[in-house]
Amino acid sequence: MAQFINSKEDLVTEAIDGVLRSANGRLARLDGFPHIKVVVRTDWDKSKVALVSGGGSGHEPAHVGYVGQGMLTAAVCGDVFASPSVDAVLAGILAVSGPAGCVLIVKNYTGDRLNFGLAAERARAYGIKVAMVIVDDDIALPDLPQARGVAGTLFVHKIAGALAESGADLETVCTAAKKVVGDVSSIGMSLDTCTVPGSPKEARIAVGKAELGLGIHGESGIELVDFEGAKAAMALVLERLKPHAGSGPKVALLNNLGGATPLEMSVLAEEMAKSDVIADIQYLVGPAPMMTSLDMRGFSVSILPVRPADLTLLQSEVPMLDWPGCITLSAPEIAPIPDGLTPIKSIPSEDPKVAEFIADCCDVFLGAEAALNALDAQSGDGDTGSTLAGASRALKAAIPQLPLADSTQLYRAIGLELSQTMGGSSGVLLAIFFSAVGDAASSGLPHVEALKAGLVRVQEVGGAELGDRTMIDALAPALDALPEGFESAAKSARAGANQTANIVKAKAGRASYISEDRLSGHNDPGAEAVALLFESLA
Amino acid sequence: MAQFINSKEDLVTEAIDGVLRSANGRLARLDGFPHIKVVVRTDWDKSKVALVSGGGSGHEPAHVGYVGQGMLTAAVCGDVFASPSVDAVLAGILAVSGPAGCVLIVKNYTGDRLNFGLAAERARAYGIKVAMVIVDDDIALPDLPQARGVAGTLFVHKIAGALAESGADLETVCTAAKKVVGDVSSIGMSLDTCTVPGSPKEARIAVGKAELGLGIHGESGIELVDFEGAKAAMALVLERLKPHAGSGPKVALLNNLGGATPLEMSVLAEEMAKSDVIADIQYLVGPAPMMTSLDMRGFSVSILPVRPADLTLLQSEVPMLDWPGCITLSAPEIAPIPDGLTPIKSIPSEDPKVAEFIADCCDVFLGAEAALNALDAQSGDGDTGSTLAGASRALKAAIPQLPLADSTQLYRAIGLELSQTMGGSSGVLLAIFFSAVGDAASSGLPHVEALKAGLVRVQEVGGAELGDRTMIDALAPALDALPEGFESAAKSARAGANQTANIVKAKAGRASYISEDRLSGHNDPGAEAVALLFESLA
Repeated sequence: MAQFINSKEDLVTEAIDGVLRSANGRLARLDGFPHIKVVVRTDWDKSKVALVSGGGSGHEPAHVGYVGQGMLTAAVCGDVFASPSVDAVLAGILAVSGPAGCVLIVKNYTGDRLNFGLAAERARAYGIKVAMVIVDDDIALPDLPQARGVAGTLFVHKIAGALAESGADLETVCTAAKKVVGDVSSIGMSLDTCTVPGSPKEARIAVGKAELGLGIHGESGIELVDFEGAKAAMALVLERLKPHAGSGPKVALLNNLGGATPLEMSVLAEEMAKSDVIADIQYLVGPAPMMTSLDMRGFSVSILPVRPADLTLLQSEVPMLDWPGCITLSAPEIAPIPDGLTPIKSIPSEDPKVAEFIADCCDVFLGAEAALNALDAQSGDGDTGSTLAGASRALKAAIPQLPLADSTQLYRAIGLELSQTMGGSSGVLLAIFFSAVGDAASSGLPHVEALKAGLVRVQEVGGAELGDRTMIDALAPALDALPEGFESAAKSARAGANQTANIVKAKAGRASYISEDRLSGHNDPGAEAVALLFESLA
Repeated sequence: MAQFINSKEDLVTEAIDGVLRSANGRLARLDGFPHIKVVVRTDWDKSKVALVSGGGSGHEPAHVGYVGQGMLTAAVCGDVFASPSVDAVLAGILAVSGPAGCVLIVKNYTGDRLNFGLAAERARAYGIKVAMVIVDDDIALPDLPQARGVAGTLFVHKIAGALAESGADLETVCTAAKKVVGDVSSIGMSLDTCTVPGSPKEARIAVGKAELGLGIHGESGIELVDFEGAKAAMALVLERLKPHAGSGPKVALLNNLGGATPLEMSVLAEEMAKSDVIADIQYLVGPAPMMTSLDMRGFSVSILPVRPADLTLLQSEVPMLDWPGCITLSAPEIAPIPDGLTPIKSIPSEDPKVAEFIADCCDVFLGAEAALNALDAQSGDGDTGSTLAGASRALKAAIPQLPLADSTQLYRAIGLELSQTMGGSSGVLLAIFFSAVGDAASSGLPHVEALKAGLVRVQEVGGAELGDRTMIDALAPALDALPEGFESAAKSARAGANQTANIVKAKAGRASYISEDRLSGHNDPGAEAVALLFESLA
């Protein structure tokens, strides 16, 4: 799978510069590319305990996205899935550590432990107080005491970060961080592997299967399970977490491993909220991509039991958009449907002449059904005649229910009738036409002007203009001529309709998708229908 | 490709409820599931102009993610890639519109135009002032006047939303929105199609190719181009936008179409910032997923020329995390590398007895190279002997440069020497050991206690405990016995090393990956090396 990168080698340095450009001056990097890839806060004065984290890249927004007030002071980035060097970590420590010292937050991978560990020693030789916290929240491999560090690391960043920002000393920050590490547990599930830049993608997970308990570097899950939808997936993950989840109120962090869509993540959030597998999940961080594995279509859940003090730290605001906040889970709020969805039925009234006029119009379309269908077959799907005939049949049947004596209401009623009985775009457009004419008439516009106002609205919504090979090419000139009588209107409509046979570049409606030679020489069936109507009325 | 959903039919309603649960009470939905899927602000009092947008789902965070103070008042959601019904749009309009009226922001697709258009008519029949703005920012299809509405819609949401929030009247909001529509232009590029829930994925784009000018519903791009990396991709997109980009300062919106990783999006941001194809791109929105096409691995760029007043509206803060803000593009800020990366060289000093002691120790390992390699071949890659011999050779050669007369500095100097010459994990761990011993000794700890402090640090970083089949199994008992003399220490080291032959479940180091029967009966080579050293010293 191709990716939007230039080269594997420059990927991380270019990405870091891209982040810095859009950081509004909040972030800087150390001048050590390509070997030293360290991002630091620009507003840091070294008076507080510094928090340095990092590791291989490919987990964005971790860790650069969490550098800022109230979370990390510096992020030390390796290449994709590769630990940063000792020198890079040391540069990070030296750049941000003052008398209050520095806490290293390290995910439990050998490379990170060693490189951060040796960098810590070298920093200590300069008299810097350095503590190291190793995060091992993954519960996928119960027999291995060396559990991996995954998305639960975010809780450490946030709680330790808020404490450090408040001015707590090194021991307090470090103790709190280690308490979180002891309490948090995480596990992930994925439907697909990730695409490592420069490497072919491994098609490892069969259709219908999911991997449970995977790492964040493309490692296989510990178990291949049947995938039976979002609900079952979330239940399985929560069941695995349950023995580790502790008691009392809990916060869940719902992490997108990279490739799941927002729709999927929201469905998973809904299933988590509805689940009763783990009691007392009262708070939620996410769903959001927080600790990703490139483009892996998967998610992870991290559970942390929280005391009120932790919650305050978790919920304190930070300026980084990549921290989605820690909210109180609540039932979806539901507002009542507003009145007015059922259209107001107009009161039927009688006017034999109007009734006859409407019936005559309908008869025109009923009589032209076959001819209009044949014409439409030249440029479309051949149903214009049937569509108009069907609507005409329904409208004729509805005449006794129409407010025939109230011309303003009559237009609206016809519009409503057409919107309910006539399918397709033309039904909606005619409904809009008659509704808009009704509106215009009710505001006092003369008859012809009201019809023109309806036409304007149809053009606004439908997007067609004169000359676009639609019914407008007949209707617009007909309305212009209507003050001079139906005969003049009919002539104009006919001229307009016939002119459409020469329009081979349709710009709106479905004819715009038809080739020119199929259109040439045939009138647009909508325009033809309008012409037939006015000719009949004349 | 499987997805984390339960069923295609329930996907959007479940996702909306998931969003509401994590919205901290900011959002509600109308009580009309599944037909009416409308999300509204809970803090809305109808005194200002309401902004209603929406359309098919699958474009998240659009549109629900933009409902809130300063942007949309309501989002009307259809099923995936399907327009919402007239009733749903009408419900949205009726729920939020007061005397100030309502602006519908509609992306230019026939279904949306018709359904929003007819809903507008029905709302007007209730006397509600409704204006409609149709966004057609896509420049991919220059010959079709009916350009599609894509990510440029976000500019309309933000500018019109900020104006409405400030109390501007319907005409002002509507005029500003139409001005944005007239000025904004967008185009997208993708390396892969999207996965529509319930449908097989179309493998349309060949390796090495990209589609330019695609829609946000899986439609093909207008052009299949060669894909030659992020820089060329961004240049091509900007070249297409250039004729439409207008003059003066501009803001670019860099949109993730769904499946591009944050790393890729940051590289694209960097390429955009470095490009001079379009002059005067001074501001940036993103990179972020804003108007997605499910999981499409692609991006789009929207360009809007801005006057200072627009910029103020674009930059006003909103509480929705899905709006990434509009920042001033700036060069990456670069801070100097801190002093201290080059380790302080200690001043050489002489002490013949110490020199001899070190040389003797080195000779032990040089003499045991073959034996230790053979032992390691039983449980690993057979290089323990060579690794130690190589380090010993280097250390012996460095003796004249060591601060032999200053025992505190000597430990640190040995640690530094090992970190620079000895490869692999063991090199780092021994470097940490000697550095930490030096630290402890410099703080006044007695010799043996300092050595033990070094061991503690090695265990902290390496994660191994006594009984884990590592060199610690010999070193720890040796240090415990050391106060009684080298002979006693040697005995303890030997006992510890021999005991490792019985440890078949290694819990740390590479032996943890080796099968039990290969480990049984063989001492751990690291522990053996420690035993040999103490035996020689005794």
